[in-house]
Amino acid sequence: MTMKVIKTIPEMRAWTQAVKARGETVGFVPTMGFLHEGHLSLIRQAKKRAQRVVVSIYVNPTQFGPNEDFEKYPRDFERDEQLCKAEGVDAVFYPDDNEMYSSLHKTYVITEDLSQVLCGRSRPTHFRGVTTVVAKLFNIVQPDFAVFGQKDAQQAIIIKRMAEDLNFPVEIVVAPIIREKDGLAMSSRNKYLSPRQRKEATVLYRSLKMAEQEYSNGNHDIEDIKKKMRQLIEAESSGKIDYIEAVDAETLGPPRPGERPILIALAVYFEPARLIDNIILQKG
Amino acid sequence: MTMKVIKTIPEMRAWTQAVKARGETVGFVPTMGFLHEGHLSLIRQAKKRAQRVVVSIYVNPTQFGPNEDFEKYPRDFERDEQLCKAEGVDAVFYPDDNEMYSSLHKTYVITEDLSQVLCGRSRPTHFRGVTTVVAKLFNIVQPDFAVFGQKDAQQAIIIKRMAEDLNFPVEIVVAPIIREKDGLAMSSRNKYLSPRQRKEATVLYRSLKMAEQEYSNGNHDIEDIKKKMRQLIEAESSGKIDYIEAVDAETLGPPRPGERPILIALAVYFEPARLIDNIILQKG
Repeated sequence: MTMKVIKTIPEMRAWTQAVKARGETVGFVPTMGFLHEGHLSLIRQAKKRAQRVVVSIYVNPTQFGPNEDFEKYPRDFERDEQLCKAEGVDAVFYPDDNEMYSSLHKTYVITEDLSQVLCGRSRPTHFRGVTTVVAKLFNIVQPDFAVFGQKDAQQAIIIKRMAEDLNFPVEIVVAPIIREKDGLAMSSRNKYLSPRQRKEATVLYRSLKMAEQEYSNGNHDIEDIKKKMRQLIEAESSGKIDYIEAVDAETLGPPRPGERPILIALAVYFEPARLIDNIILQKG
Repeated sequence: MTMKVIKTIPEMRAWTQAVKARGETVGFVPTMGFLHEGHLSLIRQAKKRAQRVVVSIYVNPTQFGPNEDFEKYPRDFERDEQLCKAEGVDAVFYPDDNEMYSSLHKTYVITEDLSQVLCGRSRPTHFRGVTTVVAKLFNIVQPDFAVFGQKDAQQAIIIKRMAEDLNFPVEIVVAPIIREKDGLAMSSRNKYLSPRQRKEATVLYRSLKMAEQEYSNGNHDIEDIKKKMRQLIEAESSGKIDYIEAVDAETLGPPRPGERPILIALAVYFEPARLIDNIILQKG
């Protein structure tokens, strides 16, 4: 079967219907394109679990704020298409904005509390854009499961919450973070980094590993751990810290050291890029 | 086939899956129970169009405000069950609150602009409760189409908007208002009326018919029509007007007399009940 590129909603629905009528399962990987190893690892997860895999490539305008990088978000469909083909993807859903949002569009999916912390503090409408487009894509593609990356930890938690709360008949699979050899988490935005920034940015992962070490050594003073991370990042890079936060890894509420898993998440500006990374501290 | 009463989400999904596997279509009528002729007319519409019909009976807490009548909203499941049986309904979905909302629930579906006008003005969180539970029910029941009543005109418009915006694979069917012989629109809340209020409440429909008459006679001064309606209702009843509004029948924005259909909608308190009714003025 050759890979199909599908641009319209009715064609996408018909494709899934035909696949399901043959008794085959459909795995789904929603992306904004400009694929890197991180995305490919999600695709491989989907391939392992389903007979057919759909990748969507759509830079969703509703998850960008007015001063964010929607216009200059990197796009290269031909390259993405080749990468998907090489991974054995069965269909790429590649709609344009008119196909996805009518001029009458008024509906948003929101997750209260979860979307205003961490990245939501500096990007107040970001997650409602994400949950809205994912709800739309679930209804269009109608997969058996969808794969999201742990890289966007808050996004993964919010999507899981949404899928459960709205009873979507779609299983949410969260795949681990894929890193460069020096530890930097893969991201489409890494291409914005100067060679010097690229080198400095490795401190992000080192700060997370340090936090993990502190915690497993018995330091349950989360404020102290955050302070040490901040000091390390400021000492070894020119990055401007947006946030370093420790929250409950499921509810995003206050952390309970020693009782429940803790998500340590950070966002740091290496202008013009804003990089995120995270680690989960199991109860130790 | 005898009618099945289904209380859990997995059983509901399995039922629909089995029906669809037989190549049959599923029509869906979501209700809050305490069924009257209005509901039965929706069920009959569904029966006409689908091989199998599901009715949900669930008093949804998230669409009631803190000072509204959630606790004392009328409930009578045995009676509803008998009525559904008599209409040839195939399955009744009758979940409890624990089945529908987990303690971790955080997700809401909102329709901007549409939900803050008309009834939304005095019930600010009502429609987000409606869109949220309907999204949930669509994902649980997975019907081919769902039937809503024109009685709740704003609700029908909002649900249509939501279904289209979020690409739900569910057709929205809107069925006409069913009235008592004297014109009063059927409603579960009519039972709260005293005999005197019940008699007075007929002025609501008469005011709408008068508006229609004025409009078709060439009076395109909408403010004048609303004033005449207000005068009639105040002269002939003890009801307290919540609103009398004229809006575009699709966008709920400003009306354009002579150009596009206009929705005239009203809500009037006959304490403790709050009654709603509406009429659509075709472009004349």
